[in-house]
Formats: sequence, structure tokens, C-alpha cells
Amino acid sequence: MDFKKYVASVKDFPEPGIIFRDISPLMYNGAVYAQATDKIVNYARERGTEMIVGPEARGFIVGCPVAYKLGVGFAPARKKGKLPRDTISVTYDLEYGQASLYMQRDAVKPGQKVLVVDDLMATGGTLAATIKLVEELGGIVVGTAFLIELTDLHGRDKIKNYDMYTLMQY
Amino acid sequence: MDFKKYVASVKDFPEPGIIFRDISPLMYNGAVYAQATDKIVNYARERGTEMIVGPEARGFIVGCPVAYKLGVGFAPARKKGKLPRDTISVTYDLEYGQASLYMQRDAVKPGQKVLVVDDLMATGGTLAATIKLVEELGGIVVGTAFLIELTDLHGRDKIKNYDMYTLMQY
Repeated sequence: MDFKKYVASVKDFPEPGIIFRDISPLMYNGAVYAQATDKIVNYARERGTEMIVGPEARGFIVGCPVAYKLGVGFAPARKKGKLPRDTISVTYDLEYGQASLYMQRDAVKPGQKVLVVDDLMATGGTLAATIKLVEELGGIVVGTAFLIELTDLHGRDKIKNYDMYTLMQY
Repeated sequence: MDFKKYVASVKDFPEPGIIFRDISPLMYNGAVYAQATDKIVNYARERGTEMIVGPEARGFIVGCPVAYKLGVGFAPARKKGKLPRDTISVTYDLEYGQASLYMQRDAVKPGQKVLVVDDLMATGGTLAATIKLVEELGGIVVGTAFLIELTDLHGRDKIKNYDMYTLMQY
């Protein structure tokens, strides 16, 4: 299966100079979405995954069917103001300015083996922030998985100590 | 299965006077998340679903595993600025002000049988807007499904002509 056939490359989105890798065609096609999910499911099984964590919002589209297939839970990492109850947060640097991610304190149990998933790994900033949240909750990050890795941005260097699975590289 | 045991009711979130029904405990528990998903999968099968559409962002958590299990695609309805390529939009009234939802023009094929899903049905405003987008794309809305229905808000009255499945009522 050539998954890249189901990625639309969009020039100058969301800003001039950026090529946006749009996974929509992949998820609109049921057979392709299921095959991509199964690849991550296999990786998640190998890593002994007990819980999936994904950042808002495309991380939900990638992570939720994986959680369902494994029979494990899914916990979102969300932006400010989205999560009620007791939360923890992490603030991290973007190219311009900062961003924050939040998780509920009961999202991950201490010692739970967590797989962090998202659609795309670019600079690794969101990934590093999500890992930090999981570990602050006592979770053990057993791996990370993405549909797409932008290799030129060297995000892997930021998370050298964690195993990573990516379905496509650009 | 008493699914309500896995819903946290949070007073005064996101605003004073609102009781927020938080489905996080349900999705953190793999067995419960899978059972809730299977209920919607059964309903989706009965309705002959060929595509799942869910609004940002909790609609993804509910809809994506259903799409995966059925082997059909998932299309998100998203807020402004999130979707690249050719989109359509609908603007609808909230209690204070307005909101807009967007879908890509190739998200749904003409004649495709679509199930619209979300975590919660309140006033039905988001649901009605999502249905409008699907129909503008030529999709046939064969049903709607939610984990939670807030019956006091009479959202069902807004979409009388569509079948609806809800797992829990408050």
C-alpha cells in the first residue's frame, strides 16, 4: 500500500512557505484508514501499550481507533480551557510565541505503559510536551507513532530516548 | 453496563450555571470505551452507514473507532482555518454570537450514506450545522448518534426528520 497516494500536499498552508501534508484523503477512504490504523496497532502491540495519548485534534483521529482495537483507553492532550476537573499543563516554545497543552490528572495511571500518537511529527515540540505531561502523571512512554514524519526538521533528535514509528517520511 | 458511572458531572464548567458532562472517564477505560463504541457500531450497521462525520473535537473520539470498525471513512467538521484545500462552510447561531463549521468539498461523495456522530447532543445547533454541510456535499444523512443527550434542551425537535441514537440521557 502506497499510503502517500492518500496524502494531499498543499502549498502555503497555513502560512506562506509551508507545505501542509493533509491526511484527509487517507481518512476519507475506509480501507486505507483501516490499513494505516492496523500498522500502528501492530507497533503498539509490540511495545506493550496499555494506554494511548494523542494531542488535539488530529491525534484523536489517529489514536482513537488504535485504542479501540487494542481495548485500551484514549486520553487527549488539549489546549487551554477545554478540559474540566483537575489538570496539569506544560508550556513550550513555538517558532513564534508559546503554546500550552493540558491533561487531566486522572488520564494516566502511574506505571501505565503509554503510546503517544499524532498525525505528523515535525519539529517534535508538541510531542516533547505530550511526553512531559504523560511522565508527570507517572506514565511510562513505551513508544511514539505518527502517520507522517518531516525528516528535514529533525524532530527525532528532540526525543532520542524514545522509540518512534512513522508510516511515511517526507 | 451502566455507562453513566463513567461520566463525570462538573458544575459551573465552562461557565457558571452549566453542568458539564465529561466523558473522559469513559474513554480512559479501554473496556468501557470499546463497549460504548460497539453500541454505536451496531446502530451504524443497522442504518447502512458508508461514512462517518463528526464535529471537532470530541466527535473525533466517538466517531473514529466506529469508522475503523465498519471499515468506512471518517470526515471531520472543523472550525475556521483548520482545513486546507477547497471547503464549504455553514454559520449558525449560538446563545451568544455565532459559530462556523467547515468541511472539505471531497469529504463526502454524492449519494453516500452518512452517520453524524458527536459526544453530546444539547441544543442541536452543531448537529443541524453538520447535517447541513453533509447534505450540501450531496451526502444522505441516515442517522445521528451520541454518547449523551441533554433532554431538557429539546435538541431532538431541531432535527425531527433524522433518526437518532443516544447511549445516555440526562
